[in-house]
Amino acid sequence: MQTVYSPKHALRNARTELYGGELVPPFECPERMEHVLKQLHAVQLGTVLPPDDFDLAPVLRVHDPDFIEFLETCWEDWRKAGYRGEAIPTIIPARGMQQRIPRHVEGRLGYYALAMETSISDGTWEAARTSANVALTAQKLIHDGQDSAFALCRPPGHHAASDMFGGYCFINNAAICAQAFIDQGADRVTILDVDFHHGNGTQTIFYGRSDVMYCSLHGDPKDAFPHFLGYADETGQGSGHGFNHNYPMAPGTAYSSWKGALVDAMRKIADYSPDALIVSLGVDTFERDPISFFRLKSEDFKHYGGLLSGLQIPTLFVMEGGYAVEEIGINTINVLQGFEGS
Amino acid sequence: MQTVYSPKHALRNARTELYGGELVPPFECPERMEHVLKQLHAVQLGTVLPPDDFDLAPVLRVHDPDFIEFLETCWEDWRKAGYRGEAIPTIIPARGMQQRIPRHVEGRLGYYALAMETSISDGTWEAARTSANVALTAQKLIHDGQDSAFALCRPPGHHAASDMFGGYCFINNAAICAQAFIDQGADRVTILDVDFHHGNGTQTIFYGRSDVMYCSLHGDPKDAFPHFLGYADETGQGSGHGFNHNYPMAPGTAYSSWKGALVDAMRKIADYSPDALIVSLGVDTFERDPISFFRLKSEDFKHYGGLLSGLQIPTLFVMEGGYAVEEIGINTINVLQGFEGS
Repeated sequence: MQTVYSPKHALRNARTELYGGELVPPFECPERMEHVLKQLHAVQLGTVLPPDDFDLAPVLRVHDPDFIEFLETCWEDWRKAGYRGEAIPTIIPARGMQQRIPRHVEGRLGYYALAMETSISDGTWEAARTSANVALTAQKLIHDGQDSAFALCRPPGHHAASDMFGGYCFINNAAICAQAFIDQGADRVTILDVDFHHGNGTQTIFYGRSDVMYCSLHGDPKDAFPHFLGYADETGQGSGHGFNHNYPMAPGTAYSSWKGALVDAMRKIADYSPDALIVSLGVDTFERDPISFFRLKSEDFKHYGGLLSGLQIPTLFVMEGGYAVEEIGINTINVLQGFEGS
Repeated sequence: MQTVYSPKHALRNARTELYGGELVPPFECPERMEHVLKQLHAVQLGTVLPPDDFDLAPVLRVHDPDFIEFLETCWEDWRKAGYRGEAIPTIIPARGMQQRIPRHVEGRLGYYALAMETSISDGTWEAARTSANVALTAQKLIHDGQDSAFALCRPPGHHAASDMFGGYCFINNAAICAQAFIDQGADRVTILDVDFHHGNGTQTIFYGRSDVMYCSLHGDPKDAFPHFLGYADETGQGSGHGFNHNYPMAPGTAYSSWKGALVDAMRKIADYSPDALIVSLGVDTFERDPISFFRLKSEDFKHYGGLLSGLQIPTLFVMEGGYAVEEIGINTINVLQGFEGS
């Protein structure tokens, strides 16, 4: 399997994450990629390619242009406003409030934010653009005939909505790849999200559509971020009704239960028979992940990689979360090796 | 004029406020009250009374019982969850998200929050309850026949909605006093909010009602917190239509312009002819306030206090914001002295 990767992800190197009422070094950090690369080379998974430079057109097929402009300009505006920390909003349009876009950068920051743990820092935009290029380059490999490809991208994407950032995500890499498949002639695409957290952004982007099916296995939002989306009764709306499948699971869920949900989702995917499968690959389902509560072991990742290959669908793996930095490499590569049957 | 005050406000003594991407010592701090008390004694404004102990009934006339229970229990739940900082939410129900109440304390914290600068800390609930008692005791002085009274209370209240905290506010002191007047037989009450910030909480609590008129002079939300409420076209809804008056003003607004808005609001108040006037008294309109952008000078506060007395309505002053700690005492007492014609 070929991997697409760029060292420019390291431009996303925020100093601060809001966690438990403190500003801590971000869990979503550059070191994550180094661990994956190291393991990728150790098992000789395949060649590693640099990304092509796409323009913003495929990004703007999914994201609001004003939001993208905000991401481009936020850090400079924030710095000019004289704030000393990284850009973290203090107020977002809460229940019952207006959904107008204010003029001041702090108001705009809040308007476009869906969560507050994620600071916008110098280099964030450049890294997010590169991350999208990495994903789109891997998507092109599939379009050009490969059976599988791995987009080793960061920052991740699945929390980002068409006009909201948060949960460490800015541009929704999986969503822009799904849209690219559709724009290139695919009739149906499935995004299977195995990250511990619900991909609220991906869900909302395709919630009213039947051409992109979204399936997600994740920590029950009653107990886990993003808390306000990811419930089982969110099944799509309008022509998208029946094409959104959420599998929220309780604290302590082990692989035996998790696999049951995966098999159920795979049955739905097989019935849907998509032209391409995009796996939003988060490995924070791992038992020692520092901010999650599932109990998967390293060998389980290889096992479910193998299960996925049984679908016999061209498959694009897009890196999402996973924060136990030591093990993220092994667990990620285990999925890909399992998929390849090795 | 009699003042009601309790030293228990000091139980609200958070270590951290999220400001400009940093955790800083809160602008809304116990020292604020000491400056006001010092000036109050210096000019011999009148006697200072302790609060009576009201039960929660008058609070629950305005606030959601589940929200009040949350405020009571949040700090203990947060502490038990093992977080090391004070309670600051990382995600609140953003645009397009579900408005369900999660189970985990971090989810509940986000559900009940309207802003993130305000941490919930040990003692916050006790201080907020005392603050409400201070306001209700001063309200009772008016009910019992006084022409005016001053509730020197903190934490402040005007950002707190029926089920949301934020902007340094937890229980909406002005709102529970307005409701108390109504419950005691008043036909009409006006809340005049002269704090620099729009009192989004007070507005939303009475937005559909004609028996409590809300008038607010404040920094334009395009440029100032709370950013997502306080626009001029928010005029009330249903039977409340026409009973909400917002006067958003631009950065750099000086007293001459501000006074024009006040006179306009006073004309509306005179036409409405309320049985009681509640002044949400924030003095962060001061030219050297650290987080605001109006340009009032200390003598202007005395002048507008005098103007207010011209309404000849029983008037309850309820302390809200004001953060230039040295001058908050002079400016607050200037309003009250101006009102008394001294």
